[in-house]
Amino acid sequence: MCDVGGGGSRKLCSKSLFKELHVAVVNAQSKTLSKLVRQMKDGCNKDEQPKESTLCGLNPCLKCLQPDILYHLGLDTETTDFPKVFGDVRFVCMGGTPGRMENFAYYLMQEIGLKINAATKLRDMAEAGKRFALFKVGPVLCASHGMGCPSISILLHELIKMMHHAKCQDPVFIRIGTCGGIGVDPGTVVISSEAVDGRLNPAHEILVHGVSVQHASQLDEGLADDIKSCHDPSKDNYETIIGRTMCTHDFYEGQSRLDGAFCEYTPEMKKTYLEELQNQGVKNIEMESLALAALTSRANIRAAVVCVAILNRLNGDQIKTPHEILAKWEKRPQVLVARYIRKVLYFHENDSDWEEPDEDECEGEAPEKGATPQGGAGDTQNAPPEEAE
Amino acid sequence: MCDVGGGGSRKLCSKSLFKELHVAVVNAQSKTLSKLVRQMKDGCNKDEQPKESTLCGLNPCLKCLQPDILYHLGLDTETTDFPKVFGDVRFVCMGGTPGRMENFAYYLMQEIGLKINAATKLRDMAEAGKRFALFKVGPVLCASHGMGCPSISILLHELIKMMHHAKCQDPVFIRIGTCGGIGVDPGTVVISSEAVDGRLNPAHEILVHGVSVQHASQLDEGLADDIKSCHDPSKDNYETIIGRTMCTHDFYEGQSRLDGAFCEYTPEMKKTYLEELQNQGVKNIEMESLALAALTSRANIRAAVVCVAILNRLNGDQIKTPHEILAKWEKRPQVLVARYIRKVLYFHENDSDWEEPDEDECEGEAPEKGATPQGGAGDTQNAPPEEAE
Repeated sequence: MCDVGGGGSRKLCSKSLFKELHVAVVNAQSKTLSKLVRQMKDGCNKDEQPKESTLCGLNPCLKCLQPDILYHLGLDTETTDFPKVFGDVRFVCMGGTPGRMENFAYYLMQEIGLKINAATKLRDMAEAGKRFALFKVGPVLCASHGMGCPSISILLHELIKMMHHAKCQDPVFIRIGTCGGIGVDPGTVVISSEAVDGRLNPAHEILVHGVSVQHASQLDEGLADDIKSCHDPSKDNYETIIGRTMCTHDFYEGQSRLDGAFCEYTPEMKKTYLEELQNQGVKNIEMESLALAALTSRANIRAAVVCVAILNRLNGDQIKTPHEILAKWEKRPQVLVARYIRKVLYFHENDSDWEEPDEDECEGEAPEKGATPQGGAGDTQNAPPEEAE
Repeated sequence: MCDVGGGGSRKLCSKSLFKELHVAVVNAQSKTLSKLVRQMKDGCNKDEQPKESTLCGLNPCLKCLQPDILYHLGLDTETTDFPKVFGDVRFVCMGGTPGRMENFAYYLMQEIGLKINAATKLRDMAEAGKRFALFKVGPVLCASHGMGCPSISILLHELIKMMHHAKCQDPVFIRIGTCGGIGVDPGTVVISSEAVDGRLNPAHEILVHGVSVQHASQLDEGLADDIKSCHDPSKDNYETIIGRTMCTHDFYEGQSRLDGAFCEYTPEMKKTYLEELQNQGVKNIEMESLALAALTSRANIRAAVVCVAILNRLNGDQIKTPHEILAKWEKRPQVLVARYIRKVLYFHENDSDWEEPDEDECEGEAPEKGATPQGGAGDTQNAPPEEAE
């Protein structure tokens, strides 16, 4: 498998290049789609299959687990052939709620030029676990992570084990979500440069055998730049910025809100604290980035956090924005990340060894009864030349 | 409203009293049902309505929030009449997943002798918030809390504000869930005496303005005894015990598992740690009790944590028990808590001033379109004399 994550901080999508990109997308699609379709239909050929994933630093005991049970995902290595079903995964996108991630999966399907057989729909592949939702669209997994670091850390342990067992190559993990902004206009998209805790410490603390262990919570700078470069100032009527993200383990007191059930500080103390955060370069506050940054970097996985600010915390605590505006804002990180994935899929491939599939091979087939369709979305269409917004 | 939570550590349901209880239930039901039905149909009469909830220690700013938006529940005090809709709540039961809590709501409805109009079903009252599920069955709320302290703390802040705005009297909060046992047989129900963190410290730590604040995480001893007394050794072929619960913020490394994506300790170190927990009286490990214990006790709310152990961690990490056995075990805390609620409803009431309703008043009516049926489940039936198991 090729290096799908490459590209460092290239900025192909900057304003001046958008027209070239448009033409290039159309030209590049057919070959890449052919590759995706072939990959989905044939599975990973034995001789092409890598022997190991690119992840490192993992639990040495994993090889002894036969089977390994990913309890909260309702999957195990005995009843699911991980390399076959998940071996093609190159992007893992995560967000808070099952519904949002299902919508994102269908949106992404359209954006990367895949379609699903008319007789089928995306299946929640983690339904048996009852905790998270998990959808697969070609090389992209879309998972819900619930709220807070403990919840996303369970998901990440199990997804990282999945990547390992499936022998995935350089998967990129991206959280898309909402956040409170610090001194930024509501609707602004904030891409995290790093995650810091309530003391502005860039580390995720866990207690192991009662002892505090700190894991660095840096995020991939190049990936953040790449995603930011997919913002098009000529089309997108909002800002996209990169900045520090404070991650808390409590939505109310931990974020100095005045509207929780308890509040043992004054509005003045809150103001002083939030202004200090602003002075320290904190652009937003959310609740999952520390665990995401720490766990992915331990495994050598590049990761990003892309959140839209639904309010400016310097101006208030309660979220009073109408639902339809919030829904529009929540789409922004999705649009940016879909553009990024599309860009990587269509421009970072060395796909000269792939042939165009016959039309018969890629259209109109329903997956076998009982089989998990490899690739998630089973068929292709002509991808639209520009993403819908 | 009467004191619904009373009873201290009375043990009415101990083995020798079960037969009496059976007869007494049948005799006591009609009057109590009449009261519940009247309450549901008429709402809280103005002159009976208490002026304030019994909660204390709450945020003094709450009175200034007009409306108060419970963002993650999708409810606010402007569009919902909290005293009318939630003023009768006396029990708040919480568990991890929406599906489990919906099933519990229907089970409880049967156990406390309520039924729903055949043309309706229970509505997820927090559906608009997209984060938690919330069902109401007469005086009982059933909510999902997700995984981990940050997730349940968001729910608790908003439910405690709900109790406050609704002027609820002495609500009792109970978490029902699953856990890993320490030296106990799988299938055993553990009722927590207190919640302790990974250092065995009985306090929930939050960072407020970057400073660590510790809140005591004791649970109500009398309530734990009352729930334990609902275990019937003659019918229940499993143990119910009371013990210390360790609450972690991580499922894998925080609980010294050998099957996480990362594991930087040896099986021997794990064994030593778990045995030390056992020596310190820890009976089980889960992930929400610290926040539950701390937030409820700050508000003067009696609370309990009732979890079934789905494995004995001294014997392993992976959960290999077949799904149908797990499903049976997961029901055990529900059965115990339903018996407890039933006992409180039918035996701790001074209901001499309530009349039997006419049959026409309590059967077969569909709720008004668009109206939230007060009481959640709108009608009654003759409750079965014994709970189903």
